Amino acid sequence: AHNLLAAVLDNHIQQGNALNIDVRRVAWKRVLDLNDRALRHVVIGMGGKAHGVPRETGFDITVASEMMAILCLATDLEDMKKRLGRIVVAYTMDGRAVRADELNVTGALALLFKDAIKPNLVQTLEGTPAFIHGGPFANIAHGCNSVMATKFALKFADIVVTEAGFGADLGAEKFLDIKCRFAGLKPSAVVIVATVRALKMQGGLAKTELDKVHMPSLEKGMENLVKHIETVQAFGLPAVVAINAFPTDTKEELDFVEKKCNELGAEVALSEVWAKGGEGGIALAEKVLAATEKPNEFNFAYEVEQFIPEKIEAIVKRVYGGDGVIFTGPALKQLKEIEALGLDRMPV
Amino acid sequence: AHNLLAAVLDNHIQQGNALNIDVRRVAWKRVLDLNDRALRHVVIGMGGKAHGVPRETGFDITVASEMMAILCLATDLEDMKKRLGRIVVAYTMDGRAVRADELNVTGALALLFKDAIKPNLVQTLEGTPAFIHGGPFANIAHGCNSVMATKFALKFADIVVTEAGFGADLGAEKFLDIKCRFAGLKPSAVVIVATVRALKMQGGLAKTELDKVHMPSLEKGMENLVKHIETVQAFGLPAVVAINAFPTDTKEELDFVEKKCNELGAEVALSEVWAKGGEGGIALAEKVLAATEKPNEFNFAYEVEQFIPEKIEAIVKRVYGGDGVIFTGPALKQLKEIEALGLDRMPV
Amino acid sequence: AHNLLAAVLDNHIQQGNALNIDVRRVAWKRVLDLNDRALRHVVIGMGGKAHGVPRETGFDITVASEMMAILCLATDLEDMKKRLGRIVVAYTMDGRAVRADELNVTGALALLFKDAIKPNLVQTLEGTPAFIHGGPFANIAHGCNSVMATKFALKFADIVVTEAGFGADLGAEKFLDIKCRFAGLKPSAVVIVATVRALKMQGGLAKTELDKVHMPSLEKGMENLVKHIETVQAFGLPAVVAINAFPTDTKEELDFVEKKCNELGAEVALSEVWAKGGEGGIALAEKVLAATEKPNEFNFAYEVEQFIPEKIEAIVKRVYGGDGVIFTGPALKQLKEIEALGLDRMPV
Amino acid sequence: AHNLLAAVLDNHIQQGNALNIDVRRVAWKRVLDLNDRALRHVVIGMGGKAHGVPRETGFDITVASEMMAILCLATDLEDMKKRLGRIVVAYTMDGRAVRADELNVTGALALLFKDAIKPNLVQTLEGTPAFIHGGPFANIAHGCNSVMATKFALKFADIVVTEAGFGADLGAEKFLDIKCRFAGLKPSAVVIVATVRALKMQGGLAKTELDKVHMPSLEKGMENLVKHIETVQAFGLPAVVAINAFPTDTKEELDFVEKKCNELGAEVALSEVWAKGGEGGIALAEKVLAATEKPNEFNFAYEVEQFIPEKIEAIVKRVYGGDGVIFTGPALKQLKEIEALGLDRMPV
Repeated sequence: AHNLLAAVLDNHIQQGNALNIDVRRVAWKRVLDLNDRALRHVVIGMGGKAHGVPRETGFDITVASEMMAILCLATDLEDMKKRLGRIVVAYTMDGRAVRADELNVTGALALLFKDAIKPNLVQTLEGTPAFIHGGPFANIAHGCNSVMATKFALKFADIVVTEAGFGADLGAEKFLDIKCRFAGLKPSAVVIVATVRALKMQGGLAKTELDKVHMPSLEKGMENLVKHIETVQAFGLPAVVAINAFPTDTKEELDFVEKKCNELGAEVALSEVWAKGGEGGIALAEKVLAATEKPNEFNFAYEVEQFIPEKIEAIVKRVYGGDGVIFTGPALKQLKEIEALGLDRMPV
Repeated sequence: AHNLLAAVLDNHIQQGNALNIDVRRVAWKRVLDLNDRALRHVVIGMGGKAHGVPRETGFDITVASEMMAILCLATDLEDMKKRLGRIVVAYTMDGRAVRADELNVTGALALLFKDAIKPNLVQTLEGTPAFIHGGPFANIAHGCNSVMATKFALKFADIVVTEAGFGADLGAEKFLDIKCRFAGLKPSAVVIVATVRALKMQGGLAKTELDKVHMPSLEKGMENLVKHIETVQAFGLPAVVAINAFPTDTKEELDFVEKKCNELGAEVALSEVWAKGGEGGIALAEKVLAATEKPNEFNFAYEVEQFIPEKIEAIVKRVYGGDGVIFTGPALKQLKEIEALGLDRMPV
Repeated sequence: AHNLLAAVLDNHIQQGNALNIDVRRVAWKRVLDLNDRALRHVVIGMGGKAHGVPRETGFDITVASEMMAILCLATDLEDMKKRLGRIVVAYTMDGRAVRADELNVTGALALLFKDAIKPNLVQTLEGTPAFIHGGPFANIAHGCNSVMATKFALKFADIVVTEAGFGADLGAEKFLDIKCRFAGLKPSAVVIVATVRALKMQGGLAKTELDKVHMPSLEKGMENLVKHIETVQAFGLPAVVAINAFPTDTKEELDFVEKKCNELGAEVALSEVWAKGGEGGIALAEKVLAATEKPNEFNFAYEVEQFIPEKIEAIVKRVYGGDGVIFTGPALKQLKEIEALGLDRMPV
Repeated sequence: AHNLLAAVLDNHIQQGNALNIDVRRVAWKRVLDLNDRALRHVVIGMGGKAHGVPRETGFDITVASEMMAILCLATDLEDMKKRLGRIVVAYTMDGRAVRADELNVTGALALLFKDAIKPNLVQTLEGTPAFIHGGPFANIAHGCNSVMATKFALKFADIVVTEAGFGADLGAEKFLDIKCRFAGLKPSAVVIVATVRALKMQGGLAKTELDKVHMPSLEKGMENLVKHIETVQAFGLPAVVAINAFPTDTKEELDFVEKKCNELGAEVALSEVWAKGGEGGIALAEKVLAATEKPNEFNFAYEVEQFIPEKIEAIVKRVYGGDGVIFTGPALKQLKEIEALGLDRMPV
């Protein structure tokens, strides 16, 4: 569907370009399910009149497709269709944004999502049901599975766990500020996954030394985990730290991590799921269950009504621990374009 | 797998081009499952040192992939791997052909075909088993399903029917001269599918007039069918003409077609499968069965040991009814390259 | 001026393309006074909105500029301006030809030719006056100096010699059919320059053997010279063959050439200008003078009112000695475009 | 010559690229004597094997040619040849700098400068001799005429005036730090040209108001002139301000400018050369003469032995009045490359 939109756009230009699209300002690239360096910057439409109009563009990888992100935020096929139609695909020679709807392609696009929009119900090795649906990148999209899958799961289960990768600063922030906001979800608790080995490595220990006890590295690496816990707590949610157990972990190390987390008010549980299956997760599950039963004060990092710079500053301060933001020239220009499109009162 | 080979090739060039590949003579293009005009001629590798080396190339549609053709001719995964390794992907600056094997990618490619190499067994609405496996274009490849699927089918069934589209001049010729030769298959009979409506249209009747009886058009269009029958018979095989019945067909028309075919020694049967299911195909099946029981003198249009020009001339004369062939300068140059690669003693 | 027109055209496209020029059908390329292979096929206008609109084009060498040809056919600056304005620079998306005039640039272009339009009067080492003015390539233009220079020379001198390179088939044909026709010139005689060495080489003798007498080669090479003489005579003009003398020429060889030429009715004179200056050309000058005094029946190879295919056939038959012409598909398409532009009743 | 080097380089790549030049790291672009937007970013070498190797490059305008700068710093043709040979034209795949010498083209390039290297002696309307020789852009080169022209002039005249455009911060800095250093020149005085109108405009007055007296604008605009005077004086040279007289200038304005300049120790003279010819410049000439007779303490802004960042900081502080410099990542990377080339101990 992603590439169909691109092909339709190029065909529109080829057939006389009634919309007066500026070939240098086409925003919609193509995608391929392969990370292919040589396709990042390409010139297409070469070879004369019959083969399109020349322009510079590029290929992203398929998971980076904006349509994947749209799928995950859509409430149903009808909503999906509306969202697809609103995609800004290009700008005209006089600077107006061109939406997918103007290419008369939205119906065809939506149709291609007829099956894809249905969450896939699978089961774990132990028979526990799970939805797998959508996989947008957290660095460019909201980074977690579809709203529909989460809502279906909430209908069927008492406790629904959603994975939001890339840390509390990226995946969690987007899950909370974007997906929960749009879907009206109110999470009960956050599980932060950590390993003693990774903490030591983040503390500077060489990869080959990770089997050994090295408290100074652990102590230093612990700063990362502390920040993640604080970030979660700033959203008003209880944090439970799940430590994926390794055979090389020692009691000294585990105790140190647990003590530190407890000082911040976060519970800690050793997860041995990898070794023992569901059995190994019971300790963690119980702590998570307890956390979800506590009252919480869930709040967003910013309100959508704020100006974009304010929203970005809120995230920088709360989530990244920064002092503030400085916007460069091109960024300020883009801000104006976003405002001109009336898109400034959206989550960022 | 197709695009992986292309990406690996471009990465080889990016990493110093140890094979000294001439970027203007890369034979392996990319494919996309969309007929996208603007991708036919592209320049890739733009944008500086980190993004590949600039070169001109293009995208074909996925079914045109040479790998699809290779899959259909392979006898098993090991054979597939060998064939993949022999693909000529490019030429060096001094004119040597570079094979996929030299890019150390054959194993990875073959692995991607681990599942794809297995024929898909499906069933018709009436429960008849059928293999669907492979779909190379007859205009650029051999145009019919995989050797493996056909051989498996021969193990399980008394009669195996293989579709070879695009007429006796394209699909049938390639099925007989390429697939049957490589697979050691000896077909028993050929079914030629026709409709009265199509024959009238080929005879010049306007599409809007096809519902009417118009014997002069039918007579003229009949020349096509006659040529197809003659081509099949020239391969030493009995031809059975299956006429897909339409409600508008009249007895006069059907009789005319049948009489003409019979004069050539070809049986004719009305197929009403579309209207009546398997029931409607019994008449045809019986005629085909009878045809397969006759002795036949199957022979190829040419022998692989012949020179390429001789082989092409043989096809032109036998299949296309031409007087001969004239080779232009570039064609003669390509012939020399093919000979230099030692590929001249292959089916064409 | 050539590149100014190209730059103005690209700027027109950049500034909104009010004329709706099809970027794939820009006929006007750029030129550079260097034969630079890598510039033959280029993509320009890359790098985003501020740097033009992407399109494929190329560079020719400066002498191949159509403006050089225009300069040589113009009668004065005002005429030059009109001709510049009529240049077809591109086609619109709906197939209309765009003239330079529509880019409002003709005045500026003409101004750049203010000085260039004046023939350069120079003198030989012996003080003989000569005009040097214009140098269009005979393979793409009319291949000789400007009409203005020739007309000025005719005002000042009794005998005017014009160089028209690339043989009787290329330079002479174009000088006679194009320049003489447009300028109303009626030549009196044609000098064909030859050397014994070149004739031997054309007869197949190796370059290293040219110092030796080798009559079979000379005899065979002579066929070329005979054809040139016949071509000139077919235009109704007397031909004088000037043989540039080399120290290695022998009497046997010179006599052979002279005898052959005389049989055709062409006079021959040895030119020793290289060795002796003007003195060495007296013999030739006298023969030429004699030739100019004979009455002649100068006629064109074709009339402008003929259809283009007829004109081309006339040239092929008279000048190249061919049997006729076959037009391929693209050529026929171009013929139609030329007719649509009303340019079919022009010299070819 | 500039484009010849580019063509030879591309031909080297075409002929097998024995030097292993990285087509993405060719430093030598082409030039054209026209500011042609669409040629800034181009892809050349398109169209297959016979037409070069594809790569991205661009065109600069002719005056921006590095060869123009080289010409102006060369001491004679032999020196020119050496400098041409040292030009870094590209980098190899493994990062080595490729010099023009390696393309065996230096002799041919130098030959093309055989005539161009000789300064052009012209005369003013009043018969005063002047050299016009070279015109490199001050924003990318040293921005003034050739060393040779200046030295020849010093041989023939008591006082030699050199134009160095684009203000004291650009033209003068480069004239003093680069040309004077290389040529061993020691200037006696600097003339700064100003107009009352320009000062008012720099002070914020609208262009349409410049005819009127407006002291606040003049006062504010005067800050520019003051900075220029201070910059010149920091080089240890006496500054003479030449005010190009306009009919609209009033005594009040002229007095104000003169008073301010005098306070800084700079002489001021009204130049009426435009209106009265040489006569109108006598007042200025006398003040300049007086200035040249004063002893001066000419010194460079930096020493070549300093590190590049130190040199740049010295210019920023002395000439631009800045506080210091911050180098970004790419700049630091370039600094390392320059050091690797052994070019860090050069004027900047």
